[in-house]
Amino acid sequence: MQYKLVFVGFGNVARALARLLVRKQAVLEKEYGITFSVTGIATGKHGFAVREGGLDIQKALKLVEEGESISPLSEAPVKDSLEVIRKSRAEVMFENSPVNHSTGQPAIDHVRAALEAGMHAITANKGTVVHGYRELTALARSRGRKFLFESTVLGGSPVFSVFREAMPAAELLSFRGVLNSTTNIILSRMEKGETFDQAVKYCQSIGVAETDPSADVDGWDAAIKVAALVTVLMDLPCLPQQVERQGIRDIKPEDIKQAAAKGRRYKLVCSAERKGDKVSARVRPELVPVSDPLYGMEDSTTGVAFRTDVLGDYSIIESEREGMVAGPEPTAYGLFADFVNAVKRGD
Amino acid sequence: MQYKLVFVGFGNVARALARLLVRKQAVLEKEYGITFSVTGIATGKHGFAVREGGLDIQKALKLVEEGESISPLSEAPVKDSLEVIRKSRAEVMFENSPVNHSTGQPAIDHVRAALEAGMHAITANKGTVVHGYRELTALARSRGRKFLFESTVLGGSPVFSVFREAMPAAELLSFRGVLNSTTNIILSRMEKGETFDQAVKYCQSIGVAETDPSADVDGWDAAIKVAALVTVLMDLPCLPQQVERQGIRDIKPEDIKQAAAKGRRYKLVCSAERKGDKVSARVRPELVPVSDPLYGMEDSTTGVAFRTDVLGDYSIIESEREGMVAGPEPTAYGLFADFVNAVKRGD
Repeated sequence: MQYKLVFVGFGNVARALARLLVRKQAVLEKEYGITFSVTGIATGKHGFAVREGGLDIQKALKLVEEGESISPLSEAPVKDSLEVIRKSRAEVMFENSPVNHSTGQPAIDHVRAALEAGMHAITANKGTVVHGYRELTALARSRGRKFLFESTVLGGSPVFSVFREAMPAAELLSFRGVLNSTTNIILSRMEKGETFDQAVKYCQSIGVAETDPSADVDGWDAAIKVAALVTVLMDLPCLPQQVERQGIRDIKPEDIKQAAAKGRRYKLVCSAERKGDKVSARVRPELVPVSDPLYGMEDSTTGVAFRTDVLGDYSIIESEREGMVAGPEPTAYGLFADFVNAVKRGD
Repeated sequence: MQYKLVFVGFGNVARALARLLVRKQAVLEKEYGITFSVTGIATGKHGFAVREGGLDIQKALKLVEEGESISPLSEAPVKDSLEVIRKSRAEVMFENSPVNHSTGQPAIDHVRAALEAGMHAITANKGTVVHGYRELTALARSRGRKFLFESTVLGGSPVFSVFREAMPAAELLSFRGVLNSTTNIILSRMEKGETFDQAVKYCQSIGVAETDPSADVDGWDAAIKVAALVTVLMDLPCLPQQVERQGIRDIKPEDIKQAAAKGRRYKLVCSAERKGDKVSARVRPELVPVSDPLYGMEDSTTGVAFRTDVLGDYSIIESEREGMVAGPEPTAYGLFADFVNAVKRGD
């Protein structure tokens, strides 16, 4: 079947997704009977475009990457994201606007508009999950569509879909992991002798920390991911503000040295435990020994161990590959996988 | 919908599955609309029984565990497994007969008979995968049924279903892991000062090693699991005999001490790498440093890191929980998950 796609947000991740779709075109058609065209793109700084017969993806990528506007590609004037969604007449929307941790907007409006127009809505935006999961999931169900967000936790590595598709009727009791790669890189570099400030500067230089690194180092990004996992996998609504939170600012190089002398390491540990219909969730630095599965997660490696009522502890870890710089490709793959899962039917 | 189930083999794993199905009855009905009855059981030593209206599961469990025959529960005389499969008129068969590494029989005949009778066939038997994957999968497809085997690798933890359901169109390039828990327990205990023979005796005492420990310590169990992963996930038929194989018999306590002094550990490493339409696959002891994800897999913990063309390295680890003795429950859950996945339709 042919699917029309609309992109809201066309930054690094969305563009990596566009490239991945093109690269996987043959296998999508052969294995899943999926073909596609892109009928709408809304960008933050490079204009808007819709075309019912399909936009030229390569041209759109080139224009944005050269700092030009994509508006000349449009067959009709469009003035904002919501209009692009409507006029695209797409079956699938990919939402990749910037995250707003405190309200989830405007991403939630984009997802709502897409679902109401009968599209599947797929996003890498954590704000939509912690601020809109129940409403948007109910809306999707009522329209016979999917609201999916695999890329919000552990890059694009399968986590939500593992529980949804591969662990039926399992009850999640607790989890524990490392969810924020920036703080993990900082701690790994401090172990090698850098100061906190030097390590933060390094992360800024490779593009994994913002100018104001507070979202990472004060544990907000980790807390929003904990809240997303609790909200979805334990089916208990949880806001980032409800996660007990302590960042890594107070860890001194001396603390790290002393820990190393005892064969231990600091990790910014994310955990949650269900107690009936309540959950206790926290983000805080902990000293972990070599025997702890978190000990081996160095640099940008992140992962979570899940405790259920049916298996031994089940851990999922995404490690950066040697020599590979963290890029948008894994996150793009999570969106890609959500797309295939949303439209495929049992064979 | 109501499903009739038939059990071929009614040992520890199959009985744990029967108990799990009973425990999860309410959630199966509520979340998936699944109800079930058991219309046939074939055992190795405790007879055979069929009953179209459903056998009394608790009575069957009790009889087998008290060493009695289940034949009195049967509404008609049945003389062997194939007759139980046929007469059960079930929709789903669970195959748990003993593994035959060199031919996969009689499990393959059981799976074939079930699929030909229009049943889904679900098994924890590795022999069926390495000796029958292509044939049985094609047969299942031609009948609109499923042949599933999640429990054959990493206990019942999701691996095959993660690739099938959660990682569409991903290409597996290579993998590396620890797949045999008995040898891993032996190596962990030798690190704590036991001799090889003492560690083997311990494994025999807790029921994880056979009287003849050769299948584990010479790497055959690991090799058959490597062959299963290659056969299914790389879609390249691979027999255990085609896996380069070296066991752990030659590792001396001195070797382990010397390694520890250098911060290293022996692991029986299972790996495979795809090269075009060929694969090089091996099982052999390797010295791994602390920074290696395999280093932290102690005792009965097993796991694999998968390298694909779309993500960072994606690892799945199943750890024994503190204080829990390895039991049949996780393997039973893998069969349970296959059942739900075989019969559920997209919602």
